[in-house]
Amino acid sequence: MSTGWEDIFAHGSTASVHPFDPDTAAHAAARLDQLTKPPGSLGRLEELIVRMAGIIGQPVPRLHRPGVLIYAADHGVTEEGVSAYPAEVTVQMAINICAGGAVSSVLARAAGAVLRLIDVGIAGTVDHPALVVRKVRSGTANFTKGPAMSLEECRAAVRAGWETTLGLLDEGVDHVVFGELGIGNTTASAALLSRLLARPAEQTVGRGTGIDEAGLARKQSAVRRALQANFEAREPWAVMAALGGLELAAIAGGMMACATRRVPVLLDGVVVSAAALWADRVMPGVRDVLVATHTSPEPAHRAVLEVLGLQALVDWGMRLGEGSGALALLPVIRNACLVMAETATFSEAGVSERVTKEDESR
Amino acid sequence: MSTGWEDIFAHGSTASVHPFDPDTAAHAAARLDQLTKPPGSLGRLEELIVRMAGIIGQPVPRLHRPGVLIYAADHGVTEEGVSAYPAEVTVQMAINICAGGAVSSVLARAAGAVLRLIDVGIAGTVDHPALVVRKVRSGTANFTKGPAMSLEECRAAVRAGWETTLGLLDEGVDHVVFGELGIGNTTASAALLSRLLARPAEQTVGRGTGIDEAGLARKQSAVRRALQANFEAREPWAVMAALGGLELAAIAGGMMACATRRVPVLLDGVVVSAAALWADRVMPGVRDVLVATHTSPEPAHRAVLEVLGLQALVDWGMRLGEGSGALALLPVIRNACLVMAETATFSEAGVSERVTKEDESR
Repeated sequence: MSTGWEDIFAHGSTASVHPFDPDTAAHAAARLDQLTKPPGSLGRLEELIVRMAGIIGQPVPRLHRPGVLIYAADHGVTEEGVSAYPAEVTVQMAINICAGGAVSSVLARAAGAVLRLIDVGIAGTVDHPALVVRKVRSGTANFTKGPAMSLEECRAAVRAGWETTLGLLDEGVDHVVFGELGIGNTTASAALLSRLLARPAEQTVGRGTGIDEAGLARKQSAVRRALQANFEAREPWAVMAALGGLELAAIAGGMMACATRRVPVLLDGVVVSAAALWADRVMPGVRDVLVATHTSPEPAHRAVLEVLGLQALVDWGMRLGEGSGALALLPVIRNACLVMAETATFSEAGVSERVTKEDESR
Repeated sequence: MSTGWEDIFAHGSTASVHPFDPDTAAHAAARLDQLTKPPGSLGRLEELIVRMAGIIGQPVPRLHRPGVLIYAADHGVTEEGVSAYPAEVTVQMAINICAGGAVSSVLARAAGAVLRLIDVGIAGTVDHPALVVRKVRSGTANFTKGPAMSLEECRAAVRAGWETTLGLLDEGVDHVVFGELGIGNTTASAALLSRLLARPAEQTVGRGTGIDEAGLARKQSAVRRALQANFEAREPWAVMAALGGLELAAIAGGMMACATRRVPVLLDGVVVSAAALWADRVMPGVRDVLVATHTSPEPAHRAVLEVLGLQALVDWGMRLGEGSGALALLPVIRNACLVMAETATFSEAGVSERVTKEDESR
C-alpha cells in the first residue's frame, strides 16, 4: 500500500487534506440543543464537540482509540549551555518513557492510549524493545554555526513522522497526541518561530525546563546567532532544516498524515505547536484538524496558537512536554464527545422544553 | 452503627472535622520534585496533587472510587416565573438521570462513578427503582411570602444528606461530586448568598438555565421580596430554612459528612457552592475538603469561591448543574493523583537531575 508520501511531497499536492466541515459542525450544534440540558449550558465543552464534528465530519463525533506519538531527538545547540538538563537526559528519559515510568506513560495508560516512542535522532543508543527506531542522524548540528541538518535529512525526518503516524492510524487510532523529547528543543522551536513569525529572540525564547537568568541570556544569544548564521533560509523546508529539529520535522509529518485522514490532533506545548505551524505552511489546512488543549508559559506559545486560529482550553502553567499537557485534557475531550453520543434528547426522555413565551406562562 | 448525627448536631461539636494537613501537603510537594520531570512543570496539576494530599492526609493521594450524589427538590418560588423551564421538569429530569440519559449520567458512567439520585423534596412522584427517596416535604413554600421551610424540615434535609452520604462512603467511595436538580434552585442559591454574603440581588441573581431579560427582572424582584419577607432570619439554620432549598440543605449535610472523613469534595456550580458556604458556616472547616473545579457564569459563583479561599481550575461557561461541571473535570484530578503515584523518581529511573551549577557546566 502506498503511503501517499510521493504524491503529496514529490508533487507538492495538498488535494487530499480534508478541510474543516462547517455543515457537519452546524448539524452538531443543532443536535446539542436537542439534548436534555439548557441550550449552551455546557459552555466550552459544546464548542469542543462542534469542533470535533467538523474535523471528523460526523455530527455525532466519536473518539474510540487514542494514540500518543512521542518523537525523540537531540540538538547540537545544547553545547551552547541552553538547557537546565544535560543532553544525556534525552536517552535516559527515552528509556523511562518506554519502561512506563514517565508522566506521559502514566497519562497514556490512564487514557487507554497506544503510546509509541520513535527515535528520529537521539545522539546515543537507547536499548529498549518498545522503542521504534527511525533515526535520521544522531542529533542535529549546532545551528548557531550553520544549518541544523540538510534538506534531505529534514525530508527524511518528516517522512518518518508521516509513515509512523499512518501506521498507527492503520491500527485504528482515531485521535492523536503528539509529544516530543529532546534536551534543547525549546531552543529549536524558538529559533523556528522567530523565523516563521518574524519575531525577535526576546519574544520567542523562554525558560524551557527551567533554566536560570544566565542560561536564558545564553539561550537568547544562541537563537540570535542561529538566525544570523541561517539568514538565507526563508522557504519553509529550508527553515526547518536550518533552524528546526528532527523531532519537530517528524511531528509535522505526523500532523500532515492526520490532516489527510480527518484525525483530530490534540496539541500540547510550544514545541509541538511550532511543528504544527510549520506543517500548516507546508500543507495548508493542517490547522483544520488541530485542537489546542493548553497554553504553556513559553512566551511564543500563545502567539502560535493565535496565528493558527486556536484557543486553548486551559492555562495551567504546564511545560513538561512529552505530550503531557494534551494528555491531561484528553479525557475531558473524549467525555465531551460521549455526552453528545449518549445524552437523551428532550423527545426521547419526555422532558419539557424551555418556556418560549414566558409572558404567557405567568 | 451511629451516624454521628446526634453528636455533631445536637451538641454543636465540630471536633471530628479533619482540618487540611499542611505537613502532609509539604511532603507531597517535596516528592513531586523527585519525579522524572522538571520541578513545577505540571503547573496547576501539582497544586491539585498537593491539595489532595493535604485533604486526605497521605503524601501520595489516591482516588479510587468516585461517587456522585445528586439531591433533587422543588421550589415554591417557581410560581413567580423565575425559571426558563416549567416546574414539572424536575420530575422529568429525575427520571432521565435515573434512566442513565442525562449529561450527569453519561459523565458519571464514563468516570466509573457510583451515582445516586436522592429525592429530598420533589413536588411530585418519580417512579423509578434507582431513585432514593428521603423526601422531607413536597417542594418548599414560596419564600417571597415567608420561610421556604421550617427549621425542623431544614434539619431533616441536612440529616438526609448527611446520612445518605455516609452510606455511600461506607461503600468505599473516596471522592465525591455533589449535584443538584430542582427547577428554581438558582433563585434559592441567590437568596441564600445575598444573605450570607450581604450582597444585593443584582449581584447574586443570574440567568440560571437561561432566562430572558424580563425573567431576570422577575427573578431579582423575587429575591428582593424573599429577603424582605425573611428579614429576621440571620442565624445560619434560620437562613437556610427561610431562603434555601431542600436539596441545598441536603448537599450541605453531605459535605459535612465528607469533612468528618477527609473525603475530597469536587465542587460544581453556584448552587452546590452556596451549600458549601453554608456548611462551612455551620461546621467550620468544611472548606478544607473542597476542591473548586470550575467557575460558572452565575454572578455570585466567583464570590463564593473567593470567600471559601478556592480557585477554580477552569472558566468554561458551564451552567448545567447535576454536578456536571465537576464531573467534566474529575478525570483530570484523578489522573493528576495517578501521576504522583506512578511516575518514576529520578533515582528509580536513573535519570540525571538538573544542572545545579550552570556556570561550571559550560
